Amino acid sequence: MKLSSVIGVAAMAAAGVMMAVPAAAQFAKPEDAIKYRQSAFTVMAAHFGRIGAVVKGEAPYGPSVAADAKIVETMSHLPFPAFVDGTDSGDTGARPEIWKNRAKFDAAAENMQKAVAELAKVAASGDEGALKGAFGVAGKACKDCHDDFRKRR
Amino acid sequence: MKLSSVIGVAAMAAAGVMMAVPAAAQFAKPEDAIKYRQSAFTVMAAHFGRIGAVVKGEAPYGPSVAADAKIVETMSHLPFPAFVDGTDSGDTGARPEIWKNRAKFDAAAENMQKAVAELAKVAASGDEGALKGAFGVAGKACKDCHDDFRKRR
Repeated sequence: MKLSSVIGVAAMAAAGVMMAVPAAAQFAKPEDAIKYRQSAFTVMAAHFGRIGAVVKGEAPYGPSVAADAKIVETMSHLPFPAFVDGTDSGDTGARPEIWKNRAKFDAAAENMQKAVAELAKVAASGDEGALKGAFGVAGKACKDCHDDFRKRR
Repeated sequence: MKLSSVIGVAAMAAAGVMMAVPAAAQFAKPEDAIKYRQSAFTVMAAHFGRIGAVVKGEAPYGPSVAADAKIVETMSHLPFPAFVDGTDSGDTGARPEIWKNRAKFDAAAENMQKAVAELAKVAASGDEGALKGAFGVAGKACKDCHDDFRKRR
């Protein structure tokens, strides 16, 4: 490793210490982390599903779409810091691949977060015609990550 | 009631119909509503607890406090529409008093939401000295509602 990289990593680490408690320290027990991330996904899925109902014509288009999309966007950032080491077993649908290929998992998460941010943007704009497309892209991002990293239940 | 008030209420009711699907229709099954509201509380409690750790001096004060308080504020609005009829039994800590005295429950919820909004405001302002007080008020609002409406587990 070059010296500049070492300094860079050290600086980032120092900044991290000042800015935030390490993710693992946020949870007293592994099962707390598991319950937390499952809860965040449950809330996200519920509001995503409400937008889905609108897209499918089962519920009317209205301001609730933007509110739901905003909640989905907020929730989309929460689960991932809870995939800490030691939470790959127990009552979890997480596959070991998450920890074996963290870079791919993180990229899939980021892909979803971007898609969901775009969905929230479209929903906030009130452009009903663009909703279905943005919802589809976000739904595919969810599915892609589930296919690779979530156990079949 | 004055005619203007009657018209006002009717207009709000009509707007409500257009704006949102009734809460009960948001959940396919009673257990979905129960799981959803428990999940929202779990996420809220996790982030509230992180602020608590800062208040107690177990974690450093920093920008994460404002981020956590913002999430708590967002979450504070989610659980209550999920206390729909037919969700007073099953795997729930909700006491029947919620449905017997809904006005009191709603007032307790609103009291918590106001306290949490104030906490988020204080956290966003960066006024570290005011954090403990705002956190205490919010914590009391949580406890008051739990004392009356949550089963001892």
